[in-house]
Amino acid sequence: METIETLIKLESGLIRLKGCRMKKWSVLILLVCMCVMPVSAQHEFNKADIAAVMKRVADWQIANPQKGAEHDDLDWTHAVLYMGMIDWAELTERTDGDPSYYKWLMKIGRRNHFQMGKWMYHADFIAVGQTFIELYKKYNDTNIIAPVMARANWVVDHPTNATLELNYGKLETLSRWSWCDALFMAPPVYAKLYAMTLDKKYLDFLNKEYRASYDYLFDKEEKLFYRDCRYFNQKEANGKKVFWGRGNGWVLGGLAEILQALPKDETSRAFYEDLFVELATRVAGLQCPDGYWHASLLDPDSYPSPETSSTGLITYALAYGVNEGFLDKDQFMPVIKKAWKALTDAVEADGKLGYVQPIGADPRKVTREMTEVYGVGGFLLAGCQLYKMAE
Amino acid sequence: METIETLIKLESGLIRLKGCRMKKWSVLILLVCMCVMPVSAQHEFNKADIAAVMKRVADWQIANPQKGAEHDDLDWTHAVLYMGMIDWAELTERTDGDPSYYKWLMKIGRRNHFQMGKWMYHADFIAVGQTFIELYKKYNDTNIIAPVMARANWVVDHPTNATLELNYGKLETLSRWSWCDALFMAPPVYAKLYAMTLDKKYLDFLNKEYRASYDYLFDKEEKLFYRDCRYFNQKEANGKKVFWGRGNGWVLGGLAEILQALPKDETSRAFYEDLFVELATRVAGLQCPDGYWHASLLDPDSYPSPETSSTGLITYALAYGVNEGFLDKDQFMPVIKKAWKALTDAVEADGKLGYVQPIGADPRKVTREMTEVYGVGGFLLAGCQLYKMAE
Amino acid sequence: METIETLIKLESGLIRLKGCRMKKWSVLILLVCMCVMPVSAQHEFNKADIAAVMKRVADWQIANPQKGAEHDDLDWTHAVLYMGMIDWAELTERTDGDPSYYKWLMKIGRRNHFQMGKWMYHADFIAVGQTFIELYKKYNDTNIIAPVMARANWVVDHPTNATLELNYGKLETLSRWSWCDALFMAPPVYAKLYAMTLDKKYLDFLNKEYRASYDYLFDKEEKLFYRDCRYFNQKEANGKKVFWGRGNGWVLGGLAEILQALPKDETSRAFYEDLFVELATRVAGLQCPDGYWHASLLDPDSYPSPETSSTGLITYALAYGVNEGFLDKDQFMPVIKKAWKALTDAVEADGKLGYVQPIGADPRKVTREMTEVYGVGGFLLAGCQLYKMAE
Repeated sequence: METIETLIKLESGLIRLKGCRMKKWSVLILLVCMCVMPVSAQHEFNKADIAAVMKRVADWQIANPQKGAEHDDLDWTHAVLYMGMIDWAELTERTDGDPSYYKWLMKIGRRNHFQMGKWMYHADFIAVGQTFIELYKKYNDTNIIAPVMARANWVVDHPTNATLELNYGKLETLSRWSWCDALFMAPPVYAKLYAMTLDKKYLDFLNKEYRASYDYLFDKEEKLFYRDCRYFNQKEANGKKVFWGRGNGWVLGGLAEILQALPKDETSRAFYEDLFVELATRVAGLQCPDGYWHASLLDPDSYPSPETSSTGLITYALAYGVNEGFLDKDQFMPVIKKAWKALTDAVEADGKLGYVQPIGADPRKVTREMTEVYGVGGFLLAGCQLYKMAE
Repeated sequence: METIETLIKLESGLIRLKGCRMKKWSVLILLVCMCVMPVSAQHEFNKADIAAVMKRVADWQIANPQKGAEHDDLDWTHAVLYMGMIDWAELTERTDGDPSYYKWLMKIGRRNHFQMGKWMYHADFIAVGQTFIELYKKYNDTNIIAPVMARANWVVDHPTNATLELNYGKLETLSRWSWCDALFMAPPVYAKLYAMTLDKKYLDFLNKEYRASYDYLFDKEEKLFYRDCRYFNQKEANGKKVFWGRGNGWVLGGLAEILQALPKDETSRAFYEDLFVELATRVAGLQCPDGYWHASLLDPDSYPSPETSSTGLITYALAYGVNEGFLDKDQFMPVIKKAWKALTDAVEADGKLGYVQPIGADPRKVTREMTEVYGVGGFLLAGCQLYKMAE
Repeated sequence: METIETLIKLESGLIRLKGCRMKKWSVLILLVCMCVMPVSAQHEFNKADIAAVMKRVADWQIANPQKGAEHDDLDWTHAVLYMGMIDWAELTERTDGDPSYYKWLMKIGRRNHFQMGKWMYHADFIAVGQTFIELYKKYNDTNIIAPVMARANWVVDHPTNATLELNYGKLETLSRWSWCDALFMAPPVYAKLYAMTLDKKYLDFLNKEYRASYDYLFDKEEKLFYRDCRYFNQKEANGKKVFWGRGNGWVLGGLAEILQALPKDETSRAFYEDLFVELATRVAGLQCPDGYWHASLLDPDSYPSPETSSTGLITYALAYGVNEGFLDKDQFMPVIKKAWKALTDAVEADGKLGYVQPIGADPRKVTREMTEVYGVGGFLLAGCQLYKMAE
């Protein structure tokens, strides 16, 4: 999760912007600039090119680990990276017999004893468990899965009734899925554990908690998720409600993970499938002409920078939806292809993925130089689904 | 399991032989004949040739389903076939993108609602569950795994204290692993369920019951398993103890399945690994000059026929052991290659696998015309391990 | 359960009748014919005569087992027969010292290892368990009860949330009690298991699931159960709602079983008792002049054939209600006696019970030649209750 301070920064950024919008012409110039950017060949839609750009991005990230202690190996930021990396590891081992990405994941897992983060109930601190469950299935060593299962068992056996009214001054309000990012971080853990063990406690917890969060944060008129309760009554510069691009990307990506994990015959899938289609359809319609989704879904002009983390997550979800037959191919493929072009245009020759909005930084100033591990995670998640559908 | 009547036949076969041995020269002629059989190209030890002969064998079996109601879809005979077939399905889907063998397994599972056989505690009637657990992991539909888990839960939650002194006149003596074939049929189910759910009840049951069977049936001098208690005091024509080739093949193959299933860090693996190495080493030393293992391990001359079901199971286990590093490659590869040549020599041009000893039929009279589904199962299990080690 | 195809036939039968009703006079002739049928002495209302006709019917059925694989030993059709037969076995052993009917039931149980049918959640495939529970209580061998308990444990521990909106194109809609026949097949199993073990999980499951089905299928105006959701908006030729005679017989008979099973002090009995009295009173008032209940309860003229399976089930329930004091003797005895006369009139001299509507056959064309094992089951259930009340 975005940390307290940075979220406050983000929030102020949003508020400040309302009073001080960018000049219209500057936005236009930016958009025009983006449109005339030379289109490299790297977004060609075939398996070989998709794999090639993924490899560059993955390798650059591994060669350039994120420094600084704030967001360490077990934080949500890396959890997202690992989720992309494990799909990529599966792909490369299967197609090239290349075990190196699995090895990289295991190295990180081992040096952390496959632990969860520090906070028992906080969604961000169990996110890394999604990848560890997959690594357990492959490597069959209970040390890999014990920490995530112990954490989930505790949470499920001792559920909290904390309010969903998020307040960074009251830390217990982070104990439930009271902000929409959480719907990416935690729910797939419980879906995966249910499918493995068939222990209904995981399923019941997932369904009850997800529903509570949905009832609280989903705007049925706009068919979008609020980031958290603090935005219920805010308005963008253009008067629209405030819906965060990456936040809705978190929800969509999380739904794709849940649907992959839940048994095919599980009746509660219907709720997730319906929500997935509804949200995917809505979000797809909000793609900007540049192929990206921007920081504010209903007021993209206020935050005109390309933003690859939201775009990666959304592209992942849409491509998964088409691959699984949840979304209509004819309708969604143009959106997906445009998004993939945008994403690959943000990749430098050396594999560095740019235009990733930092945690809580000013959304007006996302630049090509900016990168973050979770952006790479979303990119790889998207790429692996695209690889499936490409020729 | 070999049924009551057929086992009595087998037993009488063994006993009859004591009084009426084959003439030494007739055995020699048979062995010589086999040695001069034309060596076809199908035993060449490379991935392509191994896959090619497996495909022929698998396709022939599918095109020629076993008829007769006694050993139906859910019986142990087919369970062994499915175990070979699922390894082959995984191999062909991964390497050729061919989903047909998975589809065949799912078709059979669906038409039986993935049920277990009729007898709650009998090892043979849960054997089919091994494959269904694997199909669940792939297809993620709880209908696939519910019956085997329901069965295993009942057995584990209501363990029987029946004697291990097998007596076909007292059916309750079949409620535990009182004959060595059972160690192939049932234990891997509990190992797999433990690895999936991490519920210790499956592991504790497995360890306790396997140990009881081992203590009862394993001859520590000869380092071989008796088929069941009725053979403790019998002697072969040459005065040696009676150890059945396929029976020890069941134990070895079952150990390979258990070791693949149990988590790598599970401390009780040590017992299974040690037993596997001890038994594999002993059995490898009993290979006949023709590359096969014969019906009687310590008196092969009494039953000189080639026998592909025991040979397939043993080859599977030895190759798995080498692939995993449990067995020394230099020491075991000559045995394995010789066995694979023998196995592939028993395959007709159309893919029919011959020389499979029928259930309880006279072991002197195994002919090239005889085939059975479990023989094909052992062949495919072996082939998939050989494919891994071949170039 | 009635199979998909036959139900479709039944449904079309109902629909076809709407457009093409029988001529009134033909119905009248049929009714008159039935009224002048010679009244045999076999319906005299004393213990000896009741036992005599039951013996004839039971023995004929045993001597004439149903052939064909579709409805095998473990199917619901036989489950109903066994329920009648076990009451009859108890009666004959107690009064005549005749163990032969128990032996017959045990022979069938043993040859099936007392297993349940193939479908984990489908009510029809646990119905046979009702009799096996009774056999366990008598013979006290856990092999008899293990399969039904294993099945029930799975269902109770892994309840499904499938919809009650029955759709034969979506098999998961048969996973709950979404058609009224199911209320005879499955609920008594859970009531009996609760009474034996006092494990509340069985009781809670029974109460929750029964209530859901009642809320969904019971028409509070007409005080009758719909067969399933497909009939909610259909109308008979006479404009009345569509309520199936045998279907409401299933519910009444099932309630009689539940009330016999549930502990006397169990507070949730009140719901079942009230429903039993309400439904019994309503159904008793719909008896036709010929003593039978016909296929359509509110439009009997459309289906004027005598029908002994619904009549047997309903007679069983009414007689049980009088015996237990739930129903007023003076009010219900005339109905019961008339029904018993009708039932016994349908018995041939050799004991064959006629006028049993086949599964899903055209309800207009039930003839004296038609018989089915479940008709015999209902007959014996009724007879054993009548024996209690007769002199």
